Amino acid sequence: MEPEELIQIYKTAVLKKDLEAYASIFDDEVYVFDTWQQWNYVGLAAWLEMAKAWFTLLGTDHDSVTFEDIKIHNSGELALIIAIMKFTAVSEEGEDLRFLQNRLTWVARKMDGTWKIIHQHTSSPVDFETMQVILTR
Amino acid sequence: MEPEELIQIYKTAVLKKDLEAYASIFDDEVYVFDTWQQWNYVGLAAWLEMAKAWFTLLGTDHDSVTFEDIKIHNSGELALIIAIMKFTAVSEEGEDLRFLQNRLTWVARKMDGTWKIIHQHTSSPVDFETMQVILTR
Repeated sequence: MEPEELIQIYKTAVLKKDLEAYASIFDDEVYVFDTWQQWNYVGLAAWLEMAKAWFTLLGTDHDSVTFEDIKIHNSGELALIIAIMKFTAVSEEGEDLRFLQNRLTWVARKMDGTWKIIHQHTSSPVDFETMQVILTR
Repeated sequence: MEPEELIQIYKTAVLKKDLEAYASIFDDEVYVFDTWQQWNYVGLAAWLEMAKAWFTLLGTDHDSVTFEDIKIHNSGELALIIAIMKFTAVSEEGEDLRFLQNRLTWVARKMDGTWKIIHQHTSSPVDFETMQVILTR
């Protein structure tokens, strides 16, 4: 398994709102800095609660995720994956409803041949004047 | 040199507004996701322009930085450093003027025995209702 495979698993899991597939790429001890609301999420259980709430909130819509400007450093034991993610909300009828972008940092650790994300940091930059988040670049 | 030494060098460099010391801990190819304004900074030159503008903006004040909740993973070649940073603006007379907090992710690479930061990601979470950044936890 190569670390970049995490991207495809993530995209498919989010598209299908598949919580089990989503969970499969994260370490039990994952430590997350997320774009929204909370300062951090410690451990997989807390992080999956967020994912469950996210998937539920989407109702009959779903999120289609694409990754741009991907950069990967792989030392064999640890890997760094950097990207810009685009989340597009799509209706049941397949219509694009809205989108936003996030800066993504993943650090993954190889255990028994499998890469697991031990740290995720997502954010969007903040405008200094308005103190509001800039949702697209 | 241990990766945690990057923290002390950073703190001293910011306290003294010492651009050369600040530059010394970053890789020439450093890729930064910063809390403010811009989606990314690519390369040390772009990143030092930000630092120069920051130090200049402080005028006769200075920023005192502390690190909390530090977590480190070190594979020998790559290291992950996670922390909550607190920036306190201090006047020339030593009075605390204001502070804010940031979530920090550093990934450093060991080259010839020296750790250099190849990726920095800082952010603060955003309130979903107001779309405004939450500056302290």
